[in-house]
Amino acid sequence: MTVYPIVFAQGSFMHKDKLNYPFEERGLQFGDGVYEVIRIYQGKYYLLNEHIDRLYRSLSEIKLSFPYDRKDFIHTLEELLKKNEMKTDGKVYLQVTRGSAPRDHVFPDNITPNVYAYLEPAKRNVELMKHGVPVITMPDIRWSHCHIKSLNLLPNLMAKQEAKEQGCFEAILHKDGTVTECSASNVYFVKNGKIYTHPATNAILHGCVRLAVERFADELGIPFIEEAYLVGDIKDADEVFLSSSTNEITPIINVDGHTIHDGSSGPITKQIQHAYAVDAGIEPVSRPMQEQ
Amino acid sequence: MTVYPIVFAQGSFMHKDKLNYPFEERGLQFGDGVYEVIRIYQGKYYLLNEHIDRLYRSLSEIKLSFPYDRKDFIHTLEELLKKNEMKTDGKVYLQVTRGSAPRDHVFPDNITPNVYAYLEPAKRNVELMKHGVPVITMPDIRWSHCHIKSLNLLPNLMAKQEAKEQGCFEAILHKDGTVTECSASNVYFVKNGKIYTHPATNAILHGCVRLAVERFADELGIPFIEEAYLVGDIKDADEVFLSSSTNEITPIINVDGHTIHDGSSGPITKQIQHAYAVDAGIEPVSRPMQEQ
Repeated sequence: MTVYPIVFAQGSFMHKDKLNYPFEERGLQFGDGVYEVIRIYQGKYYLLNEHIDRLYRSLSEIKLSFPYDRKDFIHTLEELLKKNEMKTDGKVYLQVTRGSAPRDHVFPDNITPNVYAYLEPAKRNVELMKHGVPVITMPDIRWSHCHIKSLNLLPNLMAKQEAKEQGCFEAILHKDGTVTECSASNVYFVKNGKIYTHPATNAILHGCVRLAVERFADELGIPFIEEAYLVGDIKDADEVFLSSSTNEITPIINVDGHTIHDGSSGPITKQIQHAYAVDAGIEPVSRPMQEQ
Repeated sequence: MTVYPIVFAQGSFMHKDKLNYPFEERGLQFGDGVYEVIRIYQGKYYLLNEHIDRLYRSLSEIKLSFPYDRKDFIHTLEELLKKNEMKTDGKVYLQVTRGSAPRDHVFPDNITPNVYAYLEPAKRNVELMKHGVPVITMPDIRWSHCHIKSLNLLPNLMAKQEAKEQGCFEAILHKDGTVTECSASNVYFVKNGKIYTHPATNAILHGCVRLAVERFADELGIPFIEEAYLVGDIKDADEVFLSSSTNEITPIINVDGHTIHDGSSGPITKQIQHAYAVDAGIEPVSRPMQEQ
């Protein structure tokens, strides 16, 4: 999996081998920046407006003055696709840091943000989406501003790594038993035909796919209930699934060794997956309303 | 304030203009690394062993396999001083990231850490140490592993910036009223001849100067009490001070507009400052046991 050759960095397009990060990059020294990963299907961005909305919200939360207006920045992202003649499935990684200056905790005056964006090919994990994944649960040790999509991701990495070492795909995080989200995805459970998930507070990332799931649920007439719930509710659920830009809607079939929905994807998960495919204009993972 | 020309990066010494961070640097994309800032007085590292101990502890906490043994790494840091013919006051900034690899939350296999180190001149803030600084108090929004000196510093930056915008030098952080530390320093208060500070748990950075303060207090026969305390205790204190590698021992003379010790440095703060100067072999800030 290699990166497409033309990248956007500090105001211009260049070959990735020409990119030279500044010496005192606040992104590298402090994680002083924010990012987005946007899904690309057949050379087109999916949920682009939602991601751009969130990018500007994150920038505003950390008081980072971004030099691009929304329209110009979207144009830049579209140019990136064109210059790379990107036509397949992939994603864009884009990052805005406060810029470079002699190392000091205080925000430097008159600093110019550094913007980096590059494209990567990324196949859909269809097998995982069909058959589901096992997860562990772990304490949520992150800061209290998880709604900011910041570069401070060490606790997320540590949780994802712990999941991998235990043979699992993700970690469901909880604060004193209350489930927040996974290390790199939002999480939902289904009980008696209703979808439950943590409210969009500062305790979770407000996923762009999460927004779409809420919309799909509304369209399908499935109640979408945002309220605090416990790890025990997940284990007692009819279905559990996660959502992210990279993994779309993926069923969770095992939590801490406890089997969910007989170890297979459930009917509401499939309905949401199908709605996602229709919305994104892509091949459905499986037919809805039918047990496999 | 410019950086000394010879830097250490990825296994060798080079001119800083030759340093080229790798394209997919996990430090830049995730803050997946740790760092140290070590004080240099007259061309010599101060509290070097304490900093190296903490570096290895931080690396171990984030499961980062460091390719240098302790002796070799200290040798490298000493070489950095020699190659730059560093003879004055300054500091070294050193950073270890997990390395570079295609972006993935899971720790990549067979990855080589990136090590960067460079020297900066840094004068002692003698005026601040003599006359003290005003601070604000703020909620501590950081993660629950603050004992790891990681590159995830955004909440620290935001607190320090807020302090600056309110005309103050630092922010005392508290979790639901319980004081932890400042955004880039440890904090202490004095009451009835005793020094109080938060215990060295996961809620604070275990400052190398904090270790030294404990040692100085022991030598001076001043009780050093590690226990949880409230913002109100600080405001009601006889003296308040902070410690860090950059700011040594600096009196806090105002908290949220509330004057401490008539707005001047107190006698125990001065005793600790004096012990610091003796230990570091530097000019004392002021004479102890004497009010200015």
